[in-house]
Amino acid sequence: MPPANAPPADRKALRALIRALPGPDRQAEAKAAAREPALTKPPGALARLEDLSRWAAAWQGRHPARVRRIAACVFAGNHGVVARGVSAFPAQVTRQMVANFEAGGAAINQFCAVAGAKLKVVALALDKPTADFTQAPAMTEREFFAALAAGWRAVPAGIDVLCPGEMGIGNTTAAAAICGALFGGTARDWTGPGTGVKGTAMEKKIRAVAAGVRRHRPAVAADPLEALRLLGGREMAAILGAVLAARMRRIPVILDGFVCTAAVAALALARRDGLAHCVVGHVSAEPGHRRLLQKLGQAPLLDLGMRLGEGTGAVLAAGILRAACAAHAGMATFAEAAVSGRKKG
Amino acid sequence: MPPANAPPADRKALRALIRALPGPDRQAEAKAAAREPALTKPPGALARLEDLSRWAAAWQGRHPARVRRIAACVFAGNHGVVARGVSAFPAQVTRQMVANFEAGGAAINQFCAVAGAKLKVVALALDKPTADFTQAPAMTEREFFAALAAGWRAVPAGIDVLCPGEMGIGNTTAAAAICGALFGGTARDWTGPGTGVKGTAMEKKIRAVAAGVRRHRPAVAADPLEALRLLGGREMAAILGAVLAARMRRIPVILDGFVCTAAVAALALARRDGLAHCVVGHVSAEPGHRRLLQKLGQAPLLDLGMRLGEGTGAVLAAGILRAACAAHAGMATFAEAAVSGRKKG
Repeated sequence: MPPANAPPADRKALRALIRALPGPDRQAEAKAAAREPALTKPPGALARLEDLSRWAAAWQGRHPARVRRIAACVFAGNHGVVARGVSAFPAQVTRQMVANFEAGGAAINQFCAVAGAKLKVVALALDKPTADFTQAPAMTEREFFAALAAGWRAVPAGIDVLCPGEMGIGNTTAAAAICGALFGGTARDWTGPGTGVKGTAMEKKIRAVAAGVRRHRPAVAADPLEALRLLGGREMAAILGAVLAARMRRIPVILDGFVCTAAVAALALARRDGLAHCVVGHVSAEPGHRRLLQKLGQAPLLDLGMRLGEGTGAVLAAGILRAACAAHAGMATFAEAAVSGRKKG
Repeated sequence: MPPANAPPADRKALRALIRALPGPDRQAEAKAAAREPALTKPPGALARLEDLSRWAAAWQGRHPARVRRIAACVFAGNHGVVARGVSAFPAQVTRQMVANFEAGGAAINQFCAVAGAKLKVVALALDKPTADFTQAPAMTEREFFAALAAGWRAVPAGIDVLCPGEMGIGNTTAAAAICGALFGGTARDWTGPGTGVKGTAMEKKIRAVAAGVRRHRPAVAADPLEALRLLGGREMAAILGAVLAARMRRIPVILDGFVCTAAVAALALARRDGLAHCVVGHVSAEPGHRRLLQKLGQAPLLDLGMRLGEGTGAVLAAGILRAACAAHAGMATFAEAAVSGRKKG
């Protein structure tokens, strides 16, 4: 396998990397579990937040976990399948939105400012859309691993949590096709309105998803990791690269919506704990996301009906993780605060 | 009715105040509604967050709404019904936790630090518990209006949003009894484990709730606003006072859990829009809270299984409101960012 600081450059290296992914730090996790009942609150009263602070300790390899430096990395790519009329917006919006991210005008910019998160924007060959997956593999191996490497290298050093995001007109079509190829079900099960298609455009979108799944499912059945290359986009390959790099460097990840989760779904099929260092920030209104989270056994932190991508759901949820870790680290114990414990009996 | 800066001192003044509560600022609301579709995202893609920024504009009477100064006010009181063995913790914990709040050691302190919220702690006659409501009215009129006034006066000047919280051993028993008296149903429907009672203690708690409802329901049927005085605690009366003061001063409110919501539930019965300036931050694991929110038609922002009170659910949700208002105010429009809109047809 490649050294921990080098991204995998081919399928063999990717498989080797996934086999060798590090597990949680059980010692940090045990320290979190031991401290929790001593804190001045009824046992279990912070519920999911108690799980989060223990999870963060396990995957940061440090107790108490720290959530100071939050990084949002938004990857952008263009999709050949857009030629099938699957989106409510024209393809040039991908590039225009990248300019908007860079100028500070998008939703993710405001969310990052509120969360104290640093935003990095990585545009991936926007002038070279992927191939139309209904006709051919979306990416060559070379294209796929180049995008994966870009994502791997984008993860900033010294961060406490990673929030990957994406922008790519057409990418809910790609996400639906990936899910169909990986998990079965009909194209209609996985396809939703995305940025707002309906009527004829929705039927075109469903047909494109069905055609892509039909064409590539045999290859995906033989190797689930191929789904992303055959049906996905460069921004999605970059997300996989970033999520793998985070695992290698002990950085917990907050996943965003449907496209982001679809980009890494095959990791959970490749090994049972492949996404154990990830939590899902928000379940999208895009119906395929809830279905996908059920397949992955992931419970989202937030459910506010959003369907924007860009990493917005992840960064919004970062505030919850920060509060969880602050409570675990900063609260007084019953002994320190001289608070009486539960009555006996 | 009293001047806007004076709390109501008796039942007549309270009724007059509630009749005269100001409504939303429809002009600020219309400005928010007009700006939203121009922002660089698919229509409706921020969903609940779009509703929140419009709601905040309407109730702050200002567009765009601003969420800079967040105030958490935690009120503490003691409950005579604790003598019935209804809690897993002894009554002295109320005072001990107040000291913990003041020393910075509780969960709410850490949540406030993360949210950038200012915390105010108001202890209400902790050495004088309310009367045991199974035997008598919990508070005299004088006691009730003194506590309400303390809450009213505790709301800091110049804040953008109020997060009321509470601490009071025994107060989920009071909340359950208030709900039973206001909305019917059995004592078992409304009674939950609170800080963690089970078995015999849980049966005692249910019996106490049933006895309180039986004794005071006729008076509550005649005047729902009496439920809080007859069955509640001083910290709950203070929350009602703070929520009324916030309405008068155009400060939107994020409600916390079961006890906090029960404290103000009668406002929604007194007039249909009585709680329209309030949003619920988090639905508690205490089962009565979900039931109560259904009665009130309120959808919580968060559902993370917490059951701690102290204002933790409200302050945690304040980050969501802040992000919503930051996105609405700070995002570029399609025209400003030169982003193409939806395709025609």
